Amino acid sequence: MDFNMKYIYSNLIGTFVFNKDHNVLEEHLFKNIKDYENKEKVEKKFKKKHKAKDLPKEEIKIVQEVLKDSKYYRNFYQNNLELTVQDIKGSISKDDFINQTISNINDIDKTTNLLVKRLRDWFKLSLPELDKDVDDHETFVSLVISKDKKELLKELGISSEESMGIDLKKDDLEEIIELAKSVDSLYKLRKKHEVYLKDLMEGFCPNLLELCGITIGAKLFEHAKSLKRLALLPASTIQLLGAEKALFRHIKTGAPSPKYGIIFTHPLVQRARRKEQGVVARTLANKISLAVRVDYFKGQPVGKKLRKELEDRFKRK
Amino acid sequence: MDFNMKYIYSNLIGTFVFNKDHNVLEEHLFKNIKDYENKEKVEKKFKKKHKAKDLPKEEIKIVQEVLKDSKYYRNFYQNNLELTVQDIKGSISKDDFINQTISNINDIDKTTNLLVKRLRDWFKLSLPELDKDVDDHETFVSLVISKDKKELLKELGISSEESMGIDLKKDDLEEIIELAKSVDSLYKLRKKHEVYLKDLMEGFCPNLLELCGITIGAKLFEHAKSLKRLALLPASTIQLLGAEKALFRHIKTGAPSPKYGIIFTHPLVQRARRKEQGVVARTLANKISLAVRVDYFKGQPVGKKLRKELEDRFKRK
Repeated sequence: MDFNMKYIYSNLIGTFVFNKDHNVLEEHLFKNIKDYENKEKVEKKFKKKHKAKDLPKEEIKIVQEVLKDSKYYRNFYQNNLELTVQDIKGSISKDDFINQTISNINDIDKTTNLLVKRLRDWFKLSLPELDKDVDDHETFVSLVISKDKKELLKELGISSEESMGIDLKKDDLEEIIELAKSVDSLYKLRKKHEVYLKDLMEGFCPNLLELCGITIGAKLFEHAKSLKRLALLPASTIQLLGAEKALFRHIKTGAPSPKYGIIFTHPLVQRARRKEQGVVARTLANKISLAVRVDYFKGQPVGKKLRKELEDRFKRK
Repeated sequence: MDFNMKYIYSNLIGTFVFNKDHNVLEEHLFKNIKDYENKEKVEKKFKKKHKAKDLPKEEIKIVQEVLKDSKYYRNFYQNNLELTVQDIKGSISKDDFINQTISNINDIDKTTNLLVKRLRDWFKLSLPELDKDVDDHETFVSLVISKDKKELLKELGISSEESMGIDLKKDDLEEIIELAKSVDSLYKLRKKHEVYLKDLMEGFCPNLLELCGITIGAKLFEHAKSLKRLALLPASTIQLLGAEKALFRHIKTGAPSPKYGIIFTHPLVQRARRKEQGVVARTLANKISLAVRVDYFKGQPVGKKLRKELEDRFKRK
């Protein structure tokens, strides 16, 4: 037996050379986490210098006791903290960006609905006929911003006398138009978010996007909260995502079980005959399940192929 | 008896000269509502020409039957419609402007709260420490807009490595900053609304404004919905506006009756000793009731005087 055998061991604190009695012969302490990541360099150097071997696994515990010396505390604490911060940073994934964007699109929808109702109500003082005539919120907002009362009256085909509204003073009108501008900028932000979300999904879950489009894709994502969880869900759960209420009613009271959740709005399900919608939904959910798994494991694109298979199978005769 | 006596009668349709058998001798039909408003001119002309007298009240019903002839329908319908439109226009008052502005300020508060929570959540990906460090929403928003990550790290006194956030790509960061800009423009709109509301109230209810300030004044207004209704409320009701829940609980269950509603936040009530707060609130409500009545009947300004009386009476010794 070679009594001069030396061992090498590295952890967060540094790289150490031990003799067989577990005494430290030489040490190289890591100043920060970057040193730790480049530990191979030091290990190589030490191995050459001391002709040392890697420490056998069964001896690690003993060596760790030796390293519990208080002189190593600061290094250990410091590097451990840095490593934790780095791990937390690493845990932020595309999932987070997608979820935040989807949630904010929902928040903007709530917000604009509230504000546009106020705008319609307020603008009624000036021209109540516009509210009746223009149902679409976005069109309403852009009309209020871009046209003055004369032009709006002309578009509505009524005279100022026929209108039930009054001519507002500039100051009064200004508050309303400023509100309309705020709503308009929220609409623009929503569109920007949508483009951004599509970009994110194209890079992160292209097959899901291809198969479901952005609206349904985002909703499925929102329910599962992450691509990983979506990929782990069985197809039958994907089929019913968003129909939780009906599902629990079914379980509790024996009411008919739901056949589809979010995917009910998918064009393929919509286009199918009523009797077939259940089958289409089930098949679609199977394909989605496949697609998100390919997305999660970064496989070859299959979205187009899956979509075509579905379309061929459920072509309306 | 003078069998040649002629009578004159005007309504929305026109001005008519009748003989004693209620036959129309001459008529002048009104083309529009403006003609109707200038009916005195025609009446004068006719009175001179026919030496006619005003129709006695008891004969109006008979004459109206004569005027139910179908040839007058179009004129009647047309002018009636115009009159209605005009009345509706006339019914729009300063009350409406004030109410709309107050409601929109409330809507904006709800909206910005929702969006700023999302913003804080989203920005945590980049720099979670800022959320903890800055409690005020407006400051948070303006920091996100005006400073880049380097500057923010410097303000927080931490290094990029210490932060738990990651460095976002330009595209990812842009969506967040755009959201912050939208929230910021809503804050600006709110401030604009406040200035406008103060202007409105200075012209419409200066004494209420003087006595209560804009926040409490607007809240009282919001509850009463119009200056008229506020002026008609008894002082005891004004005292309890906004405490309806506690009042009905008192009536229903015999719980202690509330002493104040909205006016609890008035500086005078706040400054008073706990035991005196009820008295101060009651006296304040009395003065408010006075002030809004003066406002409604457009009397001389009394707000300052009332405020001084209150302050003198409840000066803390």
